Amino acid sequence: MPLAITTDLTIDSNQPLQVQLYQQLAQRIIDQRFQPGSQMPSSRQLAADLGISRNTVLAVYDQLKAEGFLQTQSGRGVFVHSDITSVLRSPLGSKTPRRSISALKPKINTLNIDPIRTSDLDNNLPFTPGLPDIREFPIRHWNRVIHHQENRRPLMGYDGMQGYLPLRQAIAGYLRSSRGVHCHADQVIITNGAQQALSLVADIFLQPGDSVLIENPGYRGSRYALGRYGHKLVPVPLKDQVLDVHSLPMAGQAKLLYCTPTHQYPLGGILDLSQRLTLLNWAIENNTWIIEDDYDSEFHFYNKPIAAMQGLLDNSPVLYLGSFSKTMMPSVRIGYLVVPEFLVDDFVAMKRITSGESPLFIQAALTEFIESGQFVRHLRRMRQLYREKWEYFQSLVMTSLADVLTPVAESAGMHLVLEGQFDDLALCHWLREKGFGSAPLSAHFIDGHSEGSHSPRSGLVLGFASANQTQMRNCVELIREWFDAMP
Amino acid sequence: MPLAITTDLTIDSNQPLQVQLYQQLAQRIIDQRFQPGSQMPSSRQLAADLGISRNTVLAVYDQLKAEGFLQTQSGRGVFVHSDITSVLRSPLGSKTPRRSISALKPKINTLNIDPIRTSDLDNNLPFTPGLPDIREFPIRHWNRVIHHQENRRPLMGYDGMQGYLPLRQAIAGYLRSSRGVHCHADQVIITNGAQQALSLVADIFLQPGDSVLIENPGYRGSRYALGRYGHKLVPVPLKDQVLDVHSLPMAGQAKLLYCTPTHQYPLGGILDLSQRLTLLNWAIENNTWIIEDDYDSEFHFYNKPIAAMQGLLDNSPVLYLGSFSKTMMPSVRIGYLVVPEFLVDDFVAMKRITSGESPLFIQAALTEFIESGQFVRHLRRMRQLYREKWEYFQSLVMTSLADVLTPVAESAGMHLVLEGQFDDLALCHWLREKGFGSAPLSAHFIDGHSEGSHSPRSGLVLGFASANQTQMRNCVELIREWFDAMP
Repeated sequence: MPLAITTDLTIDSNQPLQVQLYQQLAQRIIDQRFQPGSQMPSSRQLAADLGISRNTVLAVYDQLKAEGFLQTQSGRGVFVHSDITSVLRSPLGSKTPRRSISALKPKINTLNIDPIRTSDLDNNLPFTPGLPDIREFPIRHWNRVIHHQENRRPLMGYDGMQGYLPLRQAIAGYLRSSRGVHCHADQVIITNGAQQALSLVADIFLQPGDSVLIENPGYRGSRYALGRYGHKLVPVPLKDQVLDVHSLPMAGQAKLLYCTPTHQYPLGGILDLSQRLTLLNWAIENNTWIIEDDYDSEFHFYNKPIAAMQGLLDNSPVLYLGSFSKTMMPSVRIGYLVVPEFLVDDFVAMKRITSGESPLFIQAALTEFIESGQFVRHLRRMRQLYREKWEYFQSLVMTSLADVLTPVAESAGMHLVLEGQFDDLALCHWLREKGFGSAPLSAHFIDGHSEGSHSPRSGLVLGFASANQTQMRNCVELIREWFDAMP
Repeated sequence: MPLAITTDLTIDSNQPLQVQLYQQLAQRIIDQRFQPGSQMPSSRQLAADLGISRNTVLAVYDQLKAEGFLQTQSGRGVFVHSDITSVLRSPLGSKTPRRSISALKPKINTLNIDPIRTSDLDNNLPFTPGLPDIREFPIRHWNRVIHHQENRRPLMGYDGMQGYLPLRQAIAGYLRSSRGVHCHADQVIITNGAQQALSLVADIFLQPGDSVLIENPGYRGSRYALGRYGHKLVPVPLKDQVLDVHSLPMAGQAKLLYCTPTHQYPLGGILDLSQRLTLLNWAIENNTWIIEDDYDSEFHFYNKPIAAMQGLLDNSPVLYLGSFSKTMMPSVRIGYLVVPEFLVDDFVAMKRITSGESPLFIQAALTEFIESGQFVRHLRRMRQLYREKWEYFQSLVMTSLADVLTPVAESAGMHLVLEGQFDDLALCHWLREKGFGSAPLSAHFIDGHSEGSHSPRSGLVLGFASANQTQMRNCVELIREWFDAMP
């Protein structure tokens, strides 16, 4: 006798009917509300009861038959398949409640990331460190480039795992002439921002027992990428806002050293030539590879930035990286690595395995933007703009906050550190509530918040590049207010 | 007495003068062709000797002074800085030749990847497995979407690490209605193609000693991603072109199982309902998580594809993944993962650390393409097109190659396997020389080419989706020719 199921089924006309009916019938077979071997109503009957077309029911029945849910017995009608009984007799099909999925929670690798950085919602607030002035991006020129590129069919298929060759050529040319990097296109690997570059270095270089030297305080993204397999991160202290190269002999053996020689993150110091040579020399003697993160080198306001370490000596153990997140815009998500030729194949293989090619269309548009000279023009405009912002913001701070905060200033970059003795995490949270991004200086120390550690420095890391003058004044007033309200 | 250096310096007017002069002077100081403490020629003299403007020389001198290369002695002129002597006396500055960089080659993690896949050059040849018919992509509709999106400033800043929310909503809606996936937008994580999704699963799940079950033969990208930390990959044999679910009890404990239930790669079989339930049940009992790679499910030619395993039971340990590389175009590089809510934060944190956000502009364009209904229309057109290609190609093979090759055919997907006893790697290389992509079936076996292993099956994996009828005829003729020439 056919199942009396019509009262049980509900049809919502907002959902595609076939899918809905399919899912409801299949679910009832699985959980044995429909017994194996029992007869289904005729398609005509079911269609009438549900007020839907018979073709819909027939299509669903056909599908369920093809999948083994239902079977036709010639001349008798359609039945729930009896073959699935053995499966449904197992714990799955039983009426006893199954464990909830959280009981299944596997033992996984969890990461310890500063909570303040895990919220995505506020990433575009003014004063967010690393955020460029998006309003000043030459969007019309960029769109013109996009229009040139968009009808090119070759940009739709697969390209090269290492990155679009014309882009690698453009980057190599730019780095040679602007940064003194010794490289050609074959040494350039396109990445998903600087973060993937760091992650690839960890994937390739770090083996069990290896340790990594990192600036302390330093860039947190590097700590996360290089420390994620549990390798020992050894902090190297700063001296005069730059990596203390003379402390290296005490640091012990390390496979990698991460540094920001041209604008220390976050404190802003610049390694001079003699320090660079000392560092390179130490690295060569100790078989340590240097990760040279050249972020912000485009924004030195008075002098041309000192040339990259990568190009100072031939054959030095340097992995050079940069990105267009700050020079173009964050959402472009294009970074690059420059590595010695004999390491290229290994990096490309690791990129293939961990994420595959980079999006081609954006790579092609960026290539045209660089080749046409628009990139360098844009950089020149932004350098001037950021210099004005830096001067204005510094003067505001000196006028209103000099008694509580000290700017740790180099004439470069997109952020300023204001140092002082206070609960910087609390102030950052409070500023965020008021609509301003910032980061606590203390969080950039490896042992920043661990108990019993010697107290690190505290302060605010403020990305002035993304703030206009009104926002600068408002933010400084708020900070003043916060300090005035302190007991 | 000033240095007589002018004959030594060369100025190439194609290079920016300042940079060139800067680099040449700095290099000579480093390698001690200019002695520390020696006097430089006056800027006027050097400019005259080199035939360049004095301002250029002055700018370079200023830069070199700022960096510590040079120093001014008041009233006497400009000198090479004497402070860097200690550095230059070290092995770095000495005249003895330094070790070449290959002597520095570090101990790194190298990957063992099939050589045929490491060449990027031929990825768009007709018959390349996985390559869609790019000529049929509705480029004008896509460009219209791009034009709608391109002036939106919010698309230029940072967005969400998990992926653009409207895109996650559109994908969740599509997967619910088309694939029976039980999910909402909060469970969807946008990735750089399916490959990053696989890599993230490995990063999160695999701990020392864990092993992974994979279909054998199976998708090589999964093998590379899941095996790259040296975890044991346990092959699960196929039966009737699908994973043999009844062999699982013999496979032993495993943390993960990778499978392609809706179109086994490469053999094309489809797990039926009873097999799906057996597999789910086994996974729950054994605390194994299933990676359900739902590639090609959009291209089932006669029936609606069987619903995804992910949605068959509530609370099942399934990580569901897919991508737009085949349904849209490879270069779009957008894939997605659907994971249980309690795992989302861990996946997002790992994505943050290993590569950061996904490019926003393409995500926004894809969202509009889906929401406007164009995606489903495009899929419908391509399904019809690929069905016709599949039928035509099969008939060609049956007519011309049936004595040497047997199609392993399901009425789905974008590729066909032609099985036979021959050196499939050699035939693939030969076809590549003739301008046709393909992959050797034997390479999809874990123990494919290892010595002493029992001989795997051999054959050609041919992606017919990217070939037109002329190319199909030519390729079949070439294969015929190859077999006829065999001894």
